[in-house]
Amino acid sequence: MSLREETLHMHRINRGKLETTSKVPVRNSEDLSLAYSPGVAEPCKDIYDDKNKVYDYTMKGNMVAVVTDGTAVLGLGNIGPEAALPVMEGKAVLFKSFAGVDAFPICLNTTDVEKIIETVKLLEPTFGGVNLEDIAAPNCFVIEERLKKETNIPVFHDDQHGTAIVTVAGLVNALKLVGKSMSNIRVVANGAGAAGIAIIKLLYRYGVRDIIMCDSKGAIFEGRPYGMNNVKTEVAKFTNRDLTEGSLADIIKKSDVFIGVSVEGALTKEVVQSMNENPIIFAMANPVPEIMPEDAKEAGAMVIGTGRSDFPNQVNNVLAFPGIFRGALDVRATHINEQMKIAAVEAIASLVSDTDLSPEYVIPGPFDPRVAPAVAAAVAKAAMETGVARIKMDPEEIAEKTRQLATIGEK
Amino acid sequence: MSLREETLHMHRINRGKLETTSKVPVRNSEDLSLAYSPGVAEPCKDIYDDKNKVYDYTMKGNMVAVVTDGTAVLGLGNIGPEAALPVMEGKAVLFKSFAGVDAFPICLNTTDVEKIIETVKLLEPTFGGVNLEDIAAPNCFVIEERLKKETNIPVFHDDQHGTAIVTVAGLVNALKLVGKSMSNIRVVANGAGAAGIAIIKLLYRYGVRDIIMCDSKGAIFEGRPYGMNNVKTEVAKFTNRDLTEGSLADIIKKSDVFIGVSVEGALTKEVVQSMNENPIIFAMANPVPEIMPEDAKEAGAMVIGTGRSDFPNQVNNVLAFPGIFRGALDVRATHINEQMKIAAVEAIASLVSDTDLSPEYVIPGPFDPRVAPAVAAAVAKAAMETGVARIKMDPEEIAEKTRQLATIGEK
Repeated sequence: MSLREETLHMHRINRGKLETTSKVPVRNSEDLSLAYSPGVAEPCKDIYDDKNKVYDYTMKGNMVAVVTDGTAVLGLGNIGPEAALPVMEGKAVLFKSFAGVDAFPICLNTTDVEKIIETVKLLEPTFGGVNLEDIAAPNCFVIEERLKKETNIPVFHDDQHGTAIVTVAGLVNALKLVGKSMSNIRVVANGAGAAGIAIIKLLYRYGVRDIIMCDSKGAIFEGRPYGMNNVKTEVAKFTNRDLTEGSLADIIKKSDVFIGVSVEGALTKEVVQSMNENPIIFAMANPVPEIMPEDAKEAGAMVIGTGRSDFPNQVNNVLAFPGIFRGALDVRATHINEQMKIAAVEAIASLVSDTDLSPEYVIPGPFDPRVAPAVAAAVAKAAMETGVARIKMDPEEIAEKTRQLATIGEK
Repeated sequence: MSLREETLHMHRINRGKLETTSKVPVRNSEDLSLAYSPGVAEPCKDIYDDKNKVYDYTMKGNMVAVVTDGTAVLGLGNIGPEAALPVMEGKAVLFKSFAGVDAFPICLNTTDVEKIIETVKLLEPTFGGVNLEDIAAPNCFVIEERLKKETNIPVFHDDQHGTAIVTVAGLVNALKLVGKSMSNIRVVANGAGAAGIAIIKLLYRYGVRDIIMCDSKGAIFEGRPYGMNNVKTEVAKFTNRDLTEGSLADIIKKSDVFIGVSVEGALTKEVVQSMNENPIIFAMANPVPEIMPEDAKEAGAMVIGTGRSDFPNQVNNVLAFPGIFRGALDVRATHINEQMKIAAVEAIASLVSDTDLSPEYVIPGPFDPRVAPAVAAAVAKAAMETGVARIKMDPEEIAEKTRQLATIGEK
């Protein structure tokens, strides 16, 4: 069977991938009187008296909404909310399998920013967190910013921050191999979508000061009179301070790091050869990278990461989001702030030991069972230290709980 | 342990009652490539080409939204969406345990009718059906009517129709015992909330022509100048055609059936004695009925039903909603129409055989394993016969599937 046949068969016989399951038995009227009437009135009354108890007595504290409008699904683009549902179910399955987080798809029949924001706010009583997924830029930026301000639960746009966290974790380790540091590298990023913007913002926070971002019209600079939007204007304020104009091939000369979140074939061997010594290449276009790893290597690249599982150094968001939400939910964080994201970067990077570190291994594999527990513990700790946690928990206990809840691997 | 302690303990240790679970394993990258990237793109593409395939490849076709605004929760009233969550989780658990229907709580942070309608419409891509729950009258009527018109999935307000279906099923059997028929009885209903209105509408459809409805201000009649609303005005057009004015005690004289969906103690022994011979009493106020069964019996009542599990003839919605949605979902019904509701009444009533029928047994017990399969098959059949089914299925296969999916009893 081809992959297409196999995956369609699997989706058809199971009618999707996600189900809701009872955590308590309902076999007889005694069970019923506890789970439903009349016993259920007791937790209701207690929550009515103290709304925080919703975290004690309900599913809310472990339940994440996977919210999409279906406008930027995988490599498929704007396919709408129904066609996006298999991806959202898959995402929910990953949340559960990697970190024991319950998650539920919310595929919305609108692309209106205000309606999406309002709907998620109306759903807040049911969910402990919100994972925005596959919403096209620039709407995704507005929706995330507004929801972060207007809700009291963690809101996280995975296409932005998940990708950014894993990419930067890979870069932290890659820089060790080439003996360069964040403060003295030049980074060129190609692609000004959700992931690209989030990556350069996180790099800036990490001390990178020499960044140029390109879109399909070439280098972005402050005051560029064409092809700008709010986010690019914001980016232009802290990147490309020399206001260099030009194509990717022009501006990439003498740079140290290429971050590709653009399209197949955007980078050639010749262009890689024009970079500084031992260039680091993250070519994450899906399904075909900006440059194939073997070509980049021939052109002198030292470390190469892609989005694909069949090459070394896969930048896979699954290294980030399950542990991030596990940690945030366990301390009932109100937000996922920058310190929590940085904690996730450090946790992921640190799992590659100095002895194991090599050009083929700067990022842990997606099924490395150490990742989600380490990320969850680090994120929870950062939440407590920065005052966004509503309760205190021992990070080591969170790591242990995550290990127990995960079902990946050959358990 | 008291019931309060036991139920709080159960809710606390499990952190609620509902979880989301994967139907497919995700242990390694091969699993991942089927359930998520890159394989998941295949069902996405097929659904994009033909939206109906969302029923083949996703959870939608088996997933019901349990929607509330928390305004009329159990006997607790307007306790808000957070405090309503334990009830909605419980409801979802019942859907799954009794008929294998996946269900998910949607507790909305608004009581605005238009916002509730719009939110449910925006959620339509994810759900195969909508169960409205514990939304106060008269908003519940507007919300249900509008959603039935403005969506293409079954919408069912259980507090209305679930209660009505089970009550009427009980009445069908009770009338056999007293040798009366729908066409020659006088019914007095006390309480003009969601359940009361739905019951008298269903009775009218069953051929009952002599109905008087009371609210706290007494008998409702056409043109009553006080305490009316849209729904009562509608009701007044087909009930109380003599325009009788008076209290419950006045108008109940010489009636055959009392339907109570009102408050504790609304009915006295003296008032029951003023009814016709062999009166039938459904006293469903919760947790304490309008009249206690022993008092009603002493006053001459022949058949007595209540909402409670500790008395005979419990009117429990769980007899209706799991099978109704099972049947509706299996034939991908676009609506739950009147014929489907009547099919459910007949299916429930017919499970009490003539030999078993007695004043203490006019309604099957809530854990009777025959109920959900019979209801599902009957509802699916009615849906196919009335043209609201999108696919054809063998009702007997649906019954068998329901038997297999149910987890109640001592399986």
